[in-house]
Amino acid sequence: MNDKQPTYTVTFLPANKSIKVKNKTSLIKAAQKAGLHINASCGGAGVCGKCRVLLEQGVLEGGNSEKLSAEEYNRGYRQACIAEVIKDITVRIPEESGRQKGGLGTEIPPRHHARMHVFEINDLKKAGIFYPPVEKLCLELPRPDTHDNRADLGRLIQGLADQRNKHRIITGLPVMKKIRRTLREKDFLVTVTLENPVNDKSKTHLLNIQPGKWDQRNFGIAVDIGTTTIYGVLIDLNSGKVLDKDSCYNPQMSYGEDVIARIIYAEKPKGLAMMQELVVDAINKVIANILENSTPTNDDEHGAIKRDEINSITIAGNTTMTHLLLELEPDNIRRSPYVPVSTFFPPLCAADLKLELPSHCVVLLFPAISSYVGGDIVAGVMGSGMYRTELLTLFIDVGTNAEIVIGNKEWLACAACSAGPAFEGGGITHGMRAVEGAISDFSLNPATLEPMNVTEGNKAPLGICGSGLLIIVATLFEHGVLNQSGKFNDIDSPRIREGRSGKEYVLAWQDECAADHDIVLNEVDIENFIRAKAAIFAGISTLLAQVGLEISDLEQIILAGGFGSYIDLDSAMTVGLLPEVDPEKIVYVGNGSLMGAWMSELSNHIRQDVVKVVRKMTSFELSEIADFKDHYVASIFLPHTDLSLFPKAIKRNRQ
Amino acid sequence: MNDKQPTYTVTFLPANKSIKVKNKTSLIKAAQKAGLHINASCGGAGVCGKCRVLLEQGVLEGGNSEKLSAEEYNRGYRQACIAEVIKDITVRIPEESGRQKGGLGTEIPPRHHARMHVFEINDLKKAGIFYPPVEKLCLELPRPDTHDNRADLGRLIQGLADQRNKHRIITGLPVMKKIRRTLREKDFLVTVTLENPVNDKSKTHLLNIQPGKWDQRNFGIAVDIGTTTIYGVLIDLNSGKVLDKDSCYNPQMSYGEDVIARIIYAEKPKGLAMMQELVVDAINKVIANILENSTPTNDDEHGAIKRDEINSITIAGNTTMTHLLLELEPDNIRRSPYVPVSTFFPPLCAADLKLELPSHCVVLLFPAISSYVGGDIVAGVMGSGMYRTELLTLFIDVGTNAEIVIGNKEWLACAACSAGPAFEGGGITHGMRAVEGAISDFSLNPATLEPMNVTEGNKAPLGICGSGLLIIVATLFEHGVLNQSGKFNDIDSPRIREGRSGKEYVLAWQDECAADHDIVLNEVDIENFIRAKAAIFAGISTLLAQVGLEISDLEQIILAGGFGSYIDLDSAMTVGLLPEVDPEKIVYVGNGSLMGAWMSELSNHIRQDVVKVVRKMTSFELSEIADFKDHYVASIFLPHTDLSLFPKAIKRNRQ
Repeated sequence: MNDKQPTYTVTFLPANKSIKVKNKTSLIKAAQKAGLHINASCGGAGVCGKCRVLLEQGVLEGGNSEKLSAEEYNRGYRQACIAEVIKDITVRIPEESGRQKGGLGTEIPPRHHARMHVFEINDLKKAGIFYPPVEKLCLELPRPDTHDNRADLGRLIQGLADQRNKHRIITGLPVMKKIRRTLREKDFLVTVTLENPVNDKSKTHLLNIQPGKWDQRNFGIAVDIGTTTIYGVLIDLNSGKVLDKDSCYNPQMSYGEDVIARIIYAEKPKGLAMMQELVVDAINKVIANILENSTPTNDDEHGAIKRDEINSITIAGNTTMTHLLLELEPDNIRRSPYVPVSTFFPPLCAADLKLELPSHCVVLLFPAISSYVGGDIVAGVMGSGMYRTELLTLFIDVGTNAEIVIGNKEWLACAACSAGPAFEGGGITHGMRAVEGAISDFSLNPATLEPMNVTEGNKAPLGICGSGLLIIVATLFEHGVLNQSGKFNDIDSPRIREGRSGKEYVLAWQDECAADHDIVLNEVDIENFIRAKAAIFAGISTLLAQVGLEISDLEQIILAGGFGSYIDLDSAMTVGLLPEVDPEKIVYVGNGSLMGAWMSELSNHIRQDVVKVVRKMTSFELSEIADFKDHYVASIFLPHTDLSLFPKAIKRNRQ
Repeated sequence: MNDKQPTYTVTFLPANKSIKVKNKTSLIKAAQKAGLHINASCGGAGVCGKCRVLLEQGVLEGGNSEKLSAEEYNRGYRQACIAEVIKDITVRIPEESGRQKGGLGTEIPPRHHARMHVFEINDLKKAGIFYPPVEKLCLELPRPDTHDNRADLGRLIQGLADQRNKHRIITGLPVMKKIRRTLREKDFLVTVTLENPVNDKSKTHLLNIQPGKWDQRNFGIAVDIGTTTIYGVLIDLNSGKVLDKDSCYNPQMSYGEDVIARIIYAEKPKGLAMMQELVVDAINKVIANILENSTPTNDDEHGAIKRDEINSITIAGNTTMTHLLLELEPDNIRRSPYVPVSTFFPPLCAADLKLELPSHCVVLLFPAISSYVGGDIVAGVMGSGMYRTELLTLFIDVGTNAEIVIGNKEWLACAACSAGPAFEGGGITHGMRAVEGAISDFSLNPATLEPMNVTEGNKAPLGICGSGLLIIVATLFEHGVLNQSGKFNDIDSPRIREGRSGKEYVLAWQDECAADHDIVLNEVDIENFIRAKAAIFAGISTLLAQVGLEISDLEQIILAGGFGSYIDLDSAMTVGLLPEVDPEKIVYVGNGSLMGAWMSELSNHIRQDVVKVVRKMTSFELSEIADFKDHYVASIFLPHTDLSLFPKAIKRNRQ
């Protein structure tokens, strides 16, 4: 670790495992990271008292509560969930806290998250495709005299041809209206802003003209309009560097959590205009925030970046978000046969959208494929480089709808899977988003079935988020608590009981958690989870079958979307959400939509290539493919009816 | 004559010449047309009493005044200037009215006006270039279903490709915003409005979409913004037919008669915005007038043409007029080295200019060559077909500035000559525009030097307009009243006297005219006239010399502009305004600027070709060419110092 935050070594006994953690890490997280189970229902609230450990060497901050007697505290007992590491320490997990099948040495499996693909400007530079859509050039033009009385605009255009090899320039009235004064203000030294051509057939737009030398200042913005969150990035288009980032909730949320609800709202009188106003206001807010106090990388002389120095903005979003932004009637997106108004969007100027950017600012929008494979996915395919790889790749963005793309540089097939909201905590009795108090990691004491709940923010549990749900189901299945159908095996444990929706596993008792009830996971929840993962896996299988390929042909998986970073790959393969592949072949690209928008700001080649890529992307309507149902039915098991697809699962079953 | 107005035969005795004239023609005009001089100073006021004729057969309307006794009237005497032809008649010109050198048989020379070039839509059709910039197409699109759920816009664009072979379509937000409803309003029967590509590299713009069948209605407007007058023509773009015309004064006139005065006004605070507003308001007024009650040629069903059915407008004007229309700072047009803001203008939409036309309406502006060879001249070169001819052609548009273009389809050279306002009556003591009361034709009784003044509107003379000035100078020179330097020879006549500006010829005495003074032409006036014609002839000679050619190489002359139709060709050659060529080789195209704009509305090829033509047109700044002064000095004689250029003049001189 290279950052300045101090790290400390924590050694766990009797396993004698040492790990390094950051200052103030909770001891329970340290144990989880070390792959050691500690009974801990309350997730950091310090109320269940089950996570006691013995501090044998060093000092901990906190760790005392009414669950410990003074004598116990003095002997070194601490509550792991409320104790924070501030020095190198040695800690013993007592038998009652770490009891495991086969004894104390048995470990919980480590978490494998996909390795993060980090977007680097240098990669673009090395590939020779660092070429922002908008550039600025400074020119000194010959002054007019009686032997050379060309018009001002003609003189400038000839200067671009002669000095910069820029040809086929076009411009509009705003530049023409100010060119006379501008040329003469600094004695024919001027800076022009050019929108570079998209392809051979396009012209170069002369967007703006400034007196004197300003070519060192050229800025762009990339925006992802998520259904939930809007992200913005401010980019120095000369250096490629990110100067600032910001995000805010999508204020349309108040009128509907998902796209369908928003479309319904937009169908009301003035609803569409209101949806547009909300998202535009939010983008304007994000822009205002990222501009505040931002300064360019290589020019201190002229100070902070001003709004009118933003020359381009690329926006990506799903098809509904893009329709609402452009005030296009989204009505038919939600009705069979799901016909959007358009899947490609012409370049606009900021004024068209009431964006608080200069009127010459170019607005680029990522094209979509269909009503449910939107510009966010196309941006992800472009941003992740999937469209340039030779490897047979599965790109998957998991949200309420999981969009999947399969292919490589030669061909691309895509589909949207109606996974339902299980991965976002929807349709799960105690499901919730990944905010404070959400159980996001879990392990099981196989002997007692006592849980170790790890929560977001180290707070008392409030519910279960998507990543937690995945790990809980995988863990319960791996330990034989659940059978292949997702039903509870007949096991006698205080943690398993008959509930209102079939049997249920109690993750936290009411008095241990922040909810006013026990937090449970029941068989209906598990069925919903299985249906969600089955929809995705069946989508993958169906798409592959359509192009005559099989799961085993996949050479790479790209995960995108917020959920992707939290997915424990082993759990995902255990339950059959993802195909079993070498985890090294899985990369996580984070917000693929934002990454694509951002790359588009740095490489005009994205704009050139995206037209071809979109044309290449064959969209499949899964519900229209007869095979899909078979694939789906085969997938509503843990991990699948066809175990040959899951060789590791077979191995586990044989053990 | 094919029109319905009756015509009558007038026979003049003793010359025994018969001509046909329209009903209500004044008898003095009939005599002038017959080439017979009648003394007539008062130009139709009926006050000089010199134009009395004897009606020998038939009936005249009017012709009586206090200048005739009852007995004279009863004998058949009439005053020709106030008598109108309403039947076939025979009239004798008595000796005292028609006295001529050599007796009554001597005639005044006939007037030769250039033959009118009439612009015919069929010529375009025959040449295969009838191809308006905007067309409308009706399409029936396949309806979406689950096997074909392409987006609305994609469906429409594919329909254009499949059904109409139209490719590379682009559109904007306004069409996208209404496409969903429009497609479904008439069950996927729609009419699209397309702006056709300018060249191979351009795309086809989808400008508008209407539900149902509307392709029979497609209209355009051509506008000429003259410094004095604004003309508009409404065109049915399907048939090519002109549906209506209108014109109005350019309201900028109130702020300056010529372009320099307007530029000076535009330099004042808010002056430019005001100049723009004035011209836009005037264009809007012309549009409103031509739209009133206009109906298309082939569609009565949907009634009168509405404003929002105008899909394109082409505008031509000189460089200053175009700058003022676009609100471009014209300041440097009037200052050496005369640098305009731009000589080419991007296609605009109506909203950019506040034209009261639909926002999708395409606005095309003719490009200019320089500050003083403007879009009006380029339009004239295009409209007259000069750019397509193989003949070495002189194009000349005479106004305050005479613009001249020499060349053919291979090359073009142009220049502006500062002729001064003499041809518009400026700088001439009693000069005036060609409005009521202006002496516009003239002949001389060689024995008495009594004039026959023919005035505009047959009213008492008020002054001399350009065409009159030309004929007066030519007539006085031909009859030896003026010498080659434009000075009066020593002739004793009550009509010739010493005035305040050298000798002068009295055209009308105060009591015969509408002015409160005698109307005269003096030597300073004649000098100004000679300077004006010399500037033009020297311009022609200089341009020709620059390209290594001579006057005698000219194969065709095209006259444009209001003045062109009034120029008596013999007079023009007599004074050395035009080179001596066979009058058959001279054509008059009328308002070349309007004709070019109009053709551009009917043939997109004009838009394609004009770019090349403009590139080909070499502009010469006459004041920068050393030879020009020599040519000018050689031209400030009647007709020229080098009489070999004027073989007919040599002949006359030898007689």
